[in-house]
Amino acid sequence: MNAQTDAQVTADSDIPAIMQEIGVSARTAARVLAMASTDAKNNALKSAAAAIRAGVTDILSANKTDIEAADERGISNAMRDRLLLNEDRIESMAVGLETIAELGDPIGDIIADWTPPNGLRITRVRVPLGVIGIIYESRPNVTADAGALCLKSGNAVILRGGSESFHSSRAIFDCLQHGLKLAGLPAAAIQIVPTTDRAAVGELLRMHEHVDIIVPRGGRGLIARVQNESRVPVIAHLDGLCHVYVHAGADFDMARDITVNAKMRRTGICGAAETLLVDRAVAKSHLPAIIDALVELKCEIRGDEAVTASDSRVKPATPEDWDTEYLDSILSVRIVDGIDEAIEHIENHGSNHTDTIVTGDAAAAAKFLNEVDSAIVLHNASTQYADGGEFGMGAEIGISTDKFHARGPVGVEQLTSYKYVVHGSGQVRP
Amino acid sequence: MNAQTDAQVTADSDIPAIMQEIGVSARTAARVLAMASTDAKNNALKSAAAAIRAGVTDILSANKTDIEAADERGISNAMRDRLLLNEDRIESMAVGLETIAELGDPIGDIIADWTPPNGLRITRVRVPLGVIGIIYESRPNVTADAGALCLKSGNAVILRGGSESFHSSRAIFDCLQHGLKLAGLPAAAIQIVPTTDRAAVGELLRMHEHVDIIVPRGGRGLIARVQNESRVPVIAHLDGLCHVYVHAGADFDMARDITVNAKMRRTGICGAAETLLVDRAVAKSHLPAIIDALVELKCEIRGDEAVTASDSRVKPATPEDWDTEYLDSILSVRIVDGIDEAIEHIENHGSNHTDTIVTGDAAAAAKFLNEVDSAIVLHNASTQYADGGEFGMGAEIGISTDKFHARGPVGVEQLTSYKYVVHGSGQVRP
Repeated sequence: MNAQTDAQVTADSDIPAIMQEIGVSARTAARVLAMASTDAKNNALKSAAAAIRAGVTDILSANKTDIEAADERGISNAMRDRLLLNEDRIESMAVGLETIAELGDPIGDIIADWTPPNGLRITRVRVPLGVIGIIYESRPNVTADAGALCLKSGNAVILRGGSESFHSSRAIFDCLQHGLKLAGLPAAAIQIVPTTDRAAVGELLRMHEHVDIIVPRGGRGLIARVQNESRVPVIAHLDGLCHVYVHAGADFDMARDITVNAKMRRTGICGAAETLLVDRAVAKSHLPAIIDALVELKCEIRGDEAVTASDSRVKPATPEDWDTEYLDSILSVRIVDGIDEAIEHIENHGSNHTDTIVTGDAAAAAKFLNEVDSAIVLHNASTQYADGGEFGMGAEIGISTDKFHARGPVGVEQLTSYKYVVHGSGQVRP
Repeated sequence: MNAQTDAQVTADSDIPAIMQEIGVSARTAARVLAMASTDAKNNALKSAAAAIRAGVTDILSANKTDIEAADERGISNAMRDRLLLNEDRIESMAVGLETIAELGDPIGDIIADWTPPNGLRITRVRVPLGVIGIIYESRPNVTADAGALCLKSGNAVILRGGSESFHSSRAIFDCLQHGLKLAGLPAAAIQIVPTTDRAAVGELLRMHEHVDIIVPRGGRGLIARVQNESRVPVIAHLDGLCHVYVHAGADFDMARDITVNAKMRRTGICGAAETLLVDRAVAKSHLPAIIDALVELKCEIRGDEAVTASDSRVKPATPEDWDTEYLDSILSVRIVDGIDEAIEHIENHGSNHTDTIVTGDAAAAAKFLNEVDSAIVLHNASTQYADGGEFGMGAEIGISTDKFHARGPVGVEQLTSYKYVVHGSGQVRP
């Protein structure tokens, strides 16, 4: 067990010195990890999974400590649910580690290979990014998921979980450490910040000489702080303000089923729809059945004037509604005069995450897919497919709404960079 | 001609408001450019090339104004040479624009295409980054090169050249504007900051809502300022502290020819070698001929103790020498005890740019190529091949030493992102 895990560092400790030490040892570990064999990385992941299964009692006990403290502070039900672990959720974590072990190893892959007229053989080879800092909030399972994704992609990782999940994350972290030890990999390959002091986050965001990339996972407040303060490049994962657009050419059943699924399958995930746009031409024919189905599932509907006037169950939407991610059983609904108005609405109010068009009209679909500037644009499918697993990319650390580096699901491959390896036969440049 | 070009805005103007206006109009132009046809973009580039040829007199006259002002301030010969335009250099710019017009258009390319078990057809499609800010120093030709690369990759660009090249850059900018106009593309696709006030750079670095990426081109001071201040992601192009490592298994002639070329072909470019590492086993056999050839070309040699002791023409190196990019006819030389010491030296003193090993030993080459953490690693070839053109990638905006997003030569393709376009048939997620 790592000495770090013995006690929480108190707030008056020397946070900058602690963080520097973590950064320096992460950099050293990253050099070893970049050369580590696929077997060693996979063995560490499988042993960590076994340690999680063997450690269920310890993990539950640590989680109980966190839950009791949270209950004393009176946290929301939603946050309590995110924090709570049980045997099923712990088993899911173990399975998650094994799934990542089974994914292909991207490191060393030759992405491209060509020979220009100078006769040099140029190859573009996949390499790790180096050191990744993950800053997250209440879900303790991020400790296992993020630790495993970074390890598999050959990166050292510095984890900084939320204070409310401190003990749970530490118990899971101990299992990851066990896996590293059995596989002969450096303990500093996966580190966890041993304090809940917020100053530690500030240090992490400034350590650009030791940290290559920061991935924040959490609410808007966390993301905004990270984007404002970070001196290290960031892959941001904003919750999504996703749209369903029912075009004039939409099939009746498909429009209803996709809207209901996009909104209600799970309301708290980033791919959940928050706003429905309906072409005026099909508002009378298609919208009532959609509202019926949603109301039956106890979804609140907030509509523009036309929608509110047409249905007494609809509350009037305020201007703020179009910019609100409810992450709850609420949907805002607006009637639009055709595809240009729909695209303009998404441009003005969307979050560049995931948006879908329902239509049988191929030209309209092509226009929407081309012009909507989101990480994921779909035609005739639910926005809830915004998920690395559904994309066949395996586990992911979130959905990036950035355009820089990784966009969309961020899996093992997105946590890598590349280098050019050039084979010559004595070439000197004329 | 753009109203912007009429006069240099004075320092007491409202810089934040000017920059905001530039940012907003760049964002609007970016939406148009993202949808622009390949033909429109290429026509703009070819018309701009024609305008440059037709405008030689105007460009030379503007350049004369800059040169005279520079001479009054007494700038260095190197900077004067970077600033100076002549008919040949202007013709090269025009040819450069035409070359970029002939490159393939990456926008809309389907990079990947697959169908997971849910039956969705998932495609990864190349899209522009959006708005790119280019901050550069004295070379006026960057105006043409960077403007053209951004245009070809479907990005709007905000150019901010050095104050010393202000008039030259504006004259070239007018030619680019002419091309945009003839092609029916928005004038704001390529904008130039109409002031030399340094506060404008600060504004540009903070406009993360309007600018997607910043590319600084210049010396360490500029890069450091940008990396420290920018709230926008940066692709940094550091000058390279490149190494030649002559391994024990190196061919005699190849070791000499590659070292001489890597150092002396052009000393002022980022791919020029600054340090030579020689295995002790071949120091006596290989090094004297290398030093002979370099001294003949008037290259100063600064060696470690062993090198200095063996040759009276060698000056002693100070510790700073190993961390110095001379960009001049100076080479530091160190004897190492084998490949591990060579790799460690590069790790401690290199800039992760370009490094080469000269050896006939395949295992040593593989180890070096694998372990040296630089954007470009070569075997038996000169470091001066670090160049997008030599890589067959066409024109480039520089060599990125970052790992995030683009690494190595940054050409048209590296100035893009991607989106996921998903084709369904009514899928809702279980």
